[in-house]
Amino acid sequence: MARSMLIAVDAMGGDNAPAEIVKGAVNALADERIKIIFLGAEEAIRKELSQHLVKTDQVEIIAASEVITNEESPTNAIRQKKNSSMVLGLRLLKDRKASAFVSAGATGALLTGATVIVGRIPGIERPALGALLPNEKNFSLLIDCGANVDAKPNYLVQFAKMGSIYMENVLGVREPRVGLLNIGAESEKGNALTKEAYALLENAVPHFVGNVEARDVPWGAADVIVCDAFVGNVVLKYTEGFAKAIMGVIQKELMSSTVSKLGALLAKNALRRVKNSFDYAEVGGAPFLGLRALVVKAHGSSDAKAIQAAIRGCAACLEKDIARKIESSLIQV
Amino acid sequence: MARSMLIAVDAMGGDNAPAEIVKGAVNALADERIKIIFLGAEEAIRKELSQHLVKTDQVEIIAASEVITNEESPTNAIRQKKNSSMVLGLRLLKDRKASAFVSAGATGALLTGATVIVGRIPGIERPALGALLPNEKNFSLLIDCGANVDAKPNYLVQFAKMGSIYMENVLGVREPRVGLLNIGAESEKGNALTKEAYALLENAVPHFVGNVEARDVPWGAADVIVCDAFVGNVVLKYTEGFAKAIMGVIQKELMSSTVSKLGALLAKNALRRVKNSFDYAEVGGAPFLGLRALVVKAHGSSDAKAIQAAIRGCAACLEKDIARKIESSLIQV
Repeated sequence: MARSMLIAVDAMGGDNAPAEIVKGAVNALADERIKIIFLGAEEAIRKELSQHLVKTDQVEIIAASEVITNEESPTNAIRQKKNSSMVLGLRLLKDRKASAFVSAGATGALLTGATVIVGRIPGIERPALGALLPNEKNFSLLIDCGANVDAKPNYLVQFAKMGSIYMENVLGVREPRVGLLNIGAESEKGNALTKEAYALLENAVPHFVGNVEARDVPWGAADVIVCDAFVGNVVLKYTEGFAKAIMGVIQKELMSSTVSKLGALLAKNALRRVKNSFDYAEVGGAPFLGLRALVVKAHGSSDAKAIQAAIRGCAACLEKDIARKIESSLIQV
Repeated sequence: MARSMLIAVDAMGGDNAPAEIVKGAVNALADERIKIIFLGAEEAIRKELSQHLVKTDQVEIIAASEVITNEESPTNAIRQKKNSSMVLGLRLLKDRKASAFVSAGATGALLTGATVIVGRIPGIERPALGALLPNEKNFSLLIDCGANVDAKPNYLVQFAKMGSIYMENVLGVREPRVGLLNIGAESEKGNALTKEAYALLENAVPHFVGNVEARDVPWGAADVIVCDAFVGNVVLKYTEGFAKAIMGVIQKELMSSTVSKLGALLAKNALRRVKNSFDYAEVGGAPFLGLRALVVKAHGSSDAKAIQAAIRGCAACLEKDIARKIESSLIQV
């Protein structure tokens, strides 16, 4: 447990880089096992670091002169920007000079770069992005929510296996229930992808609970919810927008009269807990599962709290050695 | 405006048939232009009707000895159950003995039956289910959310046109903004379907605002949101489940202390308005657009309030003659 965790952090990725990235990473250093390697514009990182109290042996900076943006083609960006914070971070991982890489930068470039530079686990056709989706009780892992928009049925089986290992080891869920996100409960429901995937999942995944309708997701109908990345990304982003919108409507309604304002004041702590339970920043990062080493995508709009949570999530995955567990489970099968 | 609206109602469809269906329909008769033809088990309908005060010239019963269930294959059910409330209702519509048909029964069978019996508008390849999705300000029409799970790009263009006519005429939205539900804002983002649909929509739809990310949907990013029925159905059902779950969490948190309980009491009216603004029953029904006559799907779990709202929605569509407007807009193009 005491072994150090060397986490490379893309200081230039996301809307709030580098200030919030550096701040969040520094806060994560409260866990003394963690060491951070920042990648990015050295001067800017140094300036941000000077705002905080940091043990110098817990941080390192590797200068990166380029930044990959959302507007670029992922393949071109990874190929051409060899000195970008993202490419250099992924190279550290490949060369085993870091044990994980966290970035709030462009998802497409991160996926492409991670696949090309870090590489897939043998037997995994496509790495997938798994995100923890809040539900009424706890969290479900929604996988894939960002990598394979036109998925094949057998990818979904691999997502199910990887997601189960993640939930069992990182969140401590015993025998995680796997559900297929679908538009009806019956096995014959759905589109071409889900119909075919259903049969495969039924045979290959021991704790497959069948189709899960979207209306049952917020009640925790399954621990692992598999889908293609188009549907998964829609659900993930809709959750984010809907939670904000509903809290906005609540705020507006509560401010509409003196009596309800008083009520809101008294219920303030309760309402804050509601907001937090559906808040992204509390979750932080989403791991790409199926890679030879750990790559975590943080939300593009991550603040320091979200980055800290992403690094904390990284540490939990490293502690349980998720990448190796996925690899060995595939060999057993 | 004073012409009568003869609305056929499937008294046997949905979880709460026939009691809530009859009750809701009777309540809708407050609008004196409306006449209802109930289809279903005559005795049962008569018994329910006897619970209410009804002007006898506003209601009629047509006996139907069979009921189509969710478990049946839609095609077989429509073909074999010729005396079902659903098939008889659709036949009335085809024979112009009713101006609309409302059912809370099986969606698949209703779509199949409507397409086969009532028929498509020439130029529309697939009828689509459009549902009003609550957003922070008002509503967006989500189309398709129940008919074509494996859609083709040109279907989405037809959905956009039909949805625009609906929003402009029924909800009074001037020049409705059409958005393509997608996983990124840039035109090249998405899966095979949305990439191809983007180019078509850009050329064919005047008020196309481009891709709409799911996180922007609850803020009213577009008036008409087009997507395939798999994604649309997931979003629709997720909205339903998520709104309930979040209200459940709010309830639980508010009950967790004496102070917050008092707060909840004072804010009761405000919180009820929040609940209502995301409540299905307030919306009621979803029209199948692209058919020669009006068919409205009510939620399977509809109560009397939802049925009343669905019939009210029917009346609004009939008043504006939506089916004919869709047909003539296609001829103009």
